[in-house]
Amino acid sequence: MYPQVLLDLIKQLKKLPGVGEKTAQRYAFKLLEMSEAELELFSSSVVEAKRSLKYCERCGNFSSDNLCEICQDEHRDQETLCVVGSIKDIVAIERLEQYPGTYFVLNGLISTVENILPVDLNINQLQHRLDEGVKEMILALNPTVEGETTALYLAKKFSNQCEITRLAQGLPMGGQLEYVDDLTLLRSMLNRKILE
Amino acid sequence: MYPQVLLDLIKQLKKLPGVGEKTAQRYAFKLLEMSEAELELFSSSVVEAKRSLKYCERCGNFSSDNLCEICQDEHRDQETLCVVGSIKDIVAIERLEQYPGTYFVLNGLISTVENILPVDLNINQLQHRLDEGVKEMILALNPTVEGETTALYLAKKFSNQCEITRLAQGLPMGGQLEYVDDLTLLRSMLNRKILE
Repeated sequence: MYPQVLLDLIKQLKKLPGVGEKTAQRYAFKLLEMSEAELELFSSSVVEAKRSLKYCERCGNFSSDNLCEICQDEHRDQETLCVVGSIKDIVAIERLEQYPGTYFVLNGLISTVENILPVDLNINQLQHRLDEGVKEMILALNPTVEGETTALYLAKKFSNQCEITRLAQGLPMGGQLEYVDDLTLLRSMLNRKILE
Repeated sequence: MYPQVLLDLIKQLKKLPGVGEKTAQRYAFKLLEMSEAELELFSSSVVEAKRSLKYCERCGNFSSDNLCEICQDEHRDQETLCVVGSIKDIVAIERLEQYPGTYFVLNGLISTVENILPVDLNINQLQHRLDEGVKEMILALNPTVEGETTALYLAKKFSNQCEITRLAQGLPMGGQLEYVDDLTLLRSMLNRKILE
């Protein structure tokens, strides 16, 4: 029923995460309402982002230089390394304005479902980074099966090279105990702390 | 925190309907995972759709010619005209494979909230279409304030030129009476029909 060019556009929009036929149609119609100039801007920003984004050679973060701002910053503790799954996680932690160390991006998490193996992650690069002298490696990975698997793998592989810690697991702030899932409640019980 | 090109991309993605900051970020990261060739395809499909889509001079539907397939079809009843708000609605009705007439796209609905006036719709063009000889004009507009307003406006304006009908309003199929909203229930009561 739709012309081929529109079907093509809908097909492309369906590549976005969580976007099905109906949403893609809505997006397509919205795009068609824009002026040609606006669409040029839209479409070029997609290609431009891919082309001109560079990554830090050392940690994998976005960077306009060989090294990213954080790696270049002399005030950041280079001996504390926070290992994350993706760049988005760096942004989340940086928002706290509390973490004084540096980062390392694995670019994924080990997953048996999606067939992502340790060899698919930046493990070799992480070894190089640890060789530069890291005292503490903080595993800040998603609290999921994939994150846990990756944490265990890294803990085993690098246990004799530096101290390895992980983010605390327990009750999320602002939630209600009765609605917290069993696994989280169990973790919060097992990891309970003495009130000081 | 994000590089400028990425912020630009996120800004563009937020123009899509219902897409906020978080979703735009997810989309942006997904796009960055694609190869440059894939992104070229994505980005060109946007511009291509806008550039090469043509509209039927007579009814406003998509068309590859001056007149769309439906307007050109001799088997369609040219004296029955179904007036819709947008081309999406034509697609919905055509899916039924039951409507034998032709269409007319208003390109919007009268809205006091969004300040869309009758002059912003294709009313003059509709007059031309009616002048070609239309016996019945079926108003197939959204059952919303905007749709109702537009229906009343059209009914008043064209009442002496042809018979004007509208889609039935009542209970949606498959729903449960207790969950139907009051206005729908009221309409279904007022519009009740004799069982034959």
